[in-house]
Amino acid sequence: MSDSIFSRIIRGEVPCQKVYEDDMCIAILDINPLSEGHTLVIPKEPAETLDQLSDESAAAVGKVLPRIARAIMKVTGAQAFNVLQNNGVAASQLVPHVHFHIIPRFPDRNGQAGLNMEWEPIDQDPEQAAELGRRIARLL
Amino acid sequence: MSDSIFSRIIRGEVPCQKVYEDDMCIAILDINPLSEGHTLVIPKEPAETLDQLSDESAAAVGKVLPRIARAIMKVTGAQAFNVLQNNGVAASQLVPHVHFHIIPRFPDRNGQAGLNMEWEPIDQDPEQAAELGRRIARLL
Repeated sequence: MSDSIFSRIIRGEVPCQKVYEDDMCIAILDINPLSEGHTLVIPKEPAETLDQLSDESAAAVGKVLPRIARAIMKVTGAQAFNVLQNNGVAASQLVPHVHFHIIPRFPDRNGQAGLNMEWEPIDQDPEQAAELGRRIARLL
Repeated sequence: MSDSIFSRIIRGEVPCQKVYEDDMCIAILDINPLSEGHTLVIPKEPAETLDQLSDESAAAVGKVLPRIARAIMKVTGAQAFNVLQNNGVAASQLVPHVHFHIIPRFPDRNGQAGLNMEWEPIDQDPEQAAELGRRIARLL
């Protein structure tokens, strides 16, 4: 368990633009937004990555995402948005405390449009995929 | 409410590589994976976008994300992963039924590494950001 900048924000030791708080989580504006209204939803439980988070905290964060997204869309006028949650430095995680990005998408705002992604599917053998699926399912 | 390919999968009318199912959601391998083990976690409630999803379904999907991520990482050996959830065609949503992507990240696999993103923060006036935060907070 880490004592990251988010733990300090949750304890009120560091200023932030807080937009929401309950017993289990907090939401703040991202200090380096990809677009207007880019918000972070953060469980108070100090797990580094989502796979380490308790079911209870994961449910609590999931529950508030629709409500917070509605407020962001209403205020910014965004018609589309991405939710992104990165785990591990190799997956672009910068702060080692679970956080969900809500990133409004503005297709008409050149350079301030939100999250830009490349979508390049891999070639995968159907039989290998089926075996992979069976192996994952056996753990669930 | 739409009757998308995911509703047909949930009803068992279309074959899929199912890895998990409970009363509220289902998880399947993505048919066009960005990396080995790319999985979709889908609420059974047929909301098109996350802002339209009930709190109950959002909590149920959130709750199972850590568990499913752990199984994917164990089977694939991935050390990092991204969770992505797209809302609206402008945000790269292809199927009009809420779904969370769990995308393992393999930094050593050239071209099969997972989700590639550009991260280009906007310039934002601190006072405008503060006002934006206050307006969102007032709706929450």
